[in-house]
Amino acid sequence: MLAPNPNPARTVRLRIRLVLGEGQALGPGKADLLEQIDALGSIAAAGRAMGMSYKRAWSLVEVMNTTFAAPLVESSRGGAGRGGARLTGTGRIVLECYRRIEDRAAEAAYADFDILAALLPETENG
Amino acid sequence: MLAPNPNPARTVRLRIRLVLGEGQALGPGKADLLEQIDALGSIAAAGRAMGMSYKRAWSLVEVMNTTFAAPLVESSRGGAGRGGARLTGTGRIVLECYRRIEDRAAEAAYADFDILAALLPETENG
Repeated sequence: MLAPNPNPARTVRLRIRLVLGEGQALGPGKADLLEQIDALGSIAAAGRAMGMSYKRAWSLVEVMNTTFAAPLVESSRGGAGRGGARLTGTGRIVLECYRRIEDRAAEAAYADFDILAALLPETENG
Repeated sequence: MLAPNPNPARTVRLRIRLVLGEGQALGPGKADLLEQIDALGSIAAAGRAMGMSYKRAWSLVEVMNTTFAAPLVESSRGGAGRGGARLTGTGRIVLECYRRIEDRAAEAAYADFDILAALLPETENG
């Protein structure tokens, strides 16, 4: 919908992080991991797609699964590389909420992005 | 305006981070530092109020001052502890935009906060 930005040095983007309960965070990394698990049906494959070790991907899933009252990811932890994984109903709702918050927050911030972008330096090629 | 939250384990808060141009970030720490400098008139005092070393506070200010086309903080770098500091016009606009984006983003996310909060575990005391 937007014309290509004529000057990439003058862009403003918003990253969000949700702080849940008494301190667990849900940010872009975990949201992307949920999305990749949903797309690829495997925690290992999702981690690989994000350049993340298997151990790291599992550890993030375990944190997410204990942050909420119900798990976000359900997996059949088979032999190496065998187990499939999928989002639970809770996982799907959490991911949808996260993406919707991202969209609505960016939309709400749009006018201020323009103000800030105008205060950024132009590049020589700008 | 809100009634006291009956269950602190079931809160959802939003933290934002702006990604500016080709990668500089402006998040809660830098925004709070600008606010403290504005309130206290000194980078050292602002850093102390945030439990931050003088060196760290100065380094964050220097990063902010070179991220935008004009500096955000103007200081008279006198002898140890002597120099005063204040926000420039640009600094004031940037801080205002940041706080307004925070408010508007949280407002836009409000309905989803409720959905997520309901998925968090109750504490034993909840």
